[in-house]
Amino acid sequence: MHTIAAMLETYPKDLGDIDRDKLVACTQACYQCSQACTACADACLSEDMVAELVKCVRTNLDCADICATTGAVLSRHTGYDANRTRTILEACAEACKTCGDECERHASMHEHCRLCAESCRSCEQACRELLTALV
Amino acid sequence: MHTIAAMLETYPKDLGDIDRDKLVACTQACYQCSQACTACADACLSEDMVAELVKCVRTNLDCADICATTGAVLSRHTGYDANRTRTILEACAEACKTCGDECERHASMHEHCRLCAESCRSCEQACRELLTALV
Amino acid sequence: MHTIAAMLETYPKDLGDIDRDKLVACTQACYQCSQACTACADACLSEDMVAELVKCVRTNLDCADICATTGAVLSRHTGYDANRTRTILEACAEACKTCGDECERHASMHEHCRLCAESCRSCEQACRELLTALV
Amino acid sequence: MHTIAAMLETYPKDLGDIDRDKLVACTQACYQCSQACTACADACLSEDMVAELVKCVRTNLDCADICATTGAVLSRHTGYDANRTRTILEACAEACKTCGDECERHASMHEHCRLCAESCRSCEQACRELLTALV
Repeated sequence: MHTIAAMLETYPKDLGDIDRDKLVACTQACYQCSQACTACADACLSEDMVAELVKCVRTNLDCADICATTGAVLSRHTGYDANRTRTILEACAEACKTCGDECERHASMHEHCRLCAESCRSCEQACRELLTALV
Repeated sequence: MHTIAAMLETYPKDLGDIDRDKLVACTQACYQCSQACTACADACLSEDMVAELVKCVRTNLDCADICATTGAVLSRHTGYDANRTRTILEACAEACKTCGDECERHASMHEHCRLCAESCRSCEQACRELLTALV
Repeated sequence: MHTIAAMLETYPKDLGDIDRDKLVACTQACYQCSQACTACADACLSEDMVAELVKCVRTNLDCADICATTGAVLSRHTGYDANRTRTILEACAEACKTCGDECERHASMHEHCRLCAESCRSCEQACRELLTALV
Repeated sequence: MHTIAAMLETYPKDLGDIDRDKLVACTQACYQCSQACTACADACLSEDMVAELVKCVRTNLDCADICATTGAVLSRHTGYDANRTRTILEACAEACKTCGDECERHASMHEHCRLCAESCRSCEQACRELLTALV
């Protein structure tokens, strides 16, 4: 996803004071986490003990949707609105936190949950760092 | 979208203390607003004065994505988490407020902006009413 | 979702020879089916016999995503491209057919699958009728 | 997005005869192209000559949605259905082709269109290679 940084460089107008490195890192983390959560939900469905993983599936599905939307919002710079960016980043950090917690509970048994928890932790942190950098 | 209420009635487990009428109304408002914002962004693109509407297009695109995700999150009840519901509803209300404001600025010239502003106002109000009803 | 027709009426440029009634009906069916499939996937997750419904959950998730994307594509008219409309409608009809078949297998036991199968059948038919109307 | 391959390795059931390298490459191309198209649509909106780019914006928006949905479908393996995979890959290849063509027309003037055209070409090729590999 090195194209995220490349695309950002081509934006034709001023980007303002935003921290570009943190913006790129967070955008990338959102797309990556959305994919990991989609894959983890599906892998949970194929486990023999799926009945014990239904909360994990649901949490993954919400996190996948919220990360995808956040990644798209962060990919747009025209008519920037700090409040909208802030509230969707807060929703994304919260979704990643609860999904990371839920996946971590199954990490020792299911490698997909362990990997997905890592993606959620990284994405939560990237959202919080970008939130701090927003003025 | 009367099927939203019908699907909710078929949910096999206890839904807890949530206000079903407000949940259905908000879910419906989210899907409707997502469609209206998608259509308004596209209609703005076809206006001769598109150069004066680029902020409106961008705001519509964010609002469409955030409403779609919120509608999906509200359609899931398994492993309910009040914090996730609350933060995505807050992001959705914020997106609808700024999109409603932006579309309203063009409402007298563009009927699609007037209609879209109405959808945004309705969806913002439905989100705020559901937020109030969450315990 | 009467706003779908209202938004279409406000489109500022010529819509060409497209059958507006079929376009509105198909757009509405896509948004409705996307919501029904999202809700049915979640309801399946809460059934005690979830282990026997994992294929149904997955089929619902694909159908929800494909219907949402098709509904968005149909909501845009600027720079219309018949090939793109045709291929996404074909993918949507196929997704609705297999999801309708899968849900129907569980319709006698699970009311959410019965309702969701109805939404899938309606959406498949709306896609096929719009495909026929495309020149 | 090396996590796409890592997540695939953790899938608990048999993946069948699918070509894993092509599947991973196509999934990654879909997520990357979806982001590039989202960013290119927004960059076009900020160009002074936006009025000449409205078809490009619309094509980007469709391609972004279709790639995102295709990436999600490819991330799921439970209850695999070759017809659904095939039709969504065909729709994705078609969307990438027309978006690549449209962006290429502006590539000499707008670097974001040049980069986005590259992402579309890569994604179209990855879809066609995966289509060929499907039995």
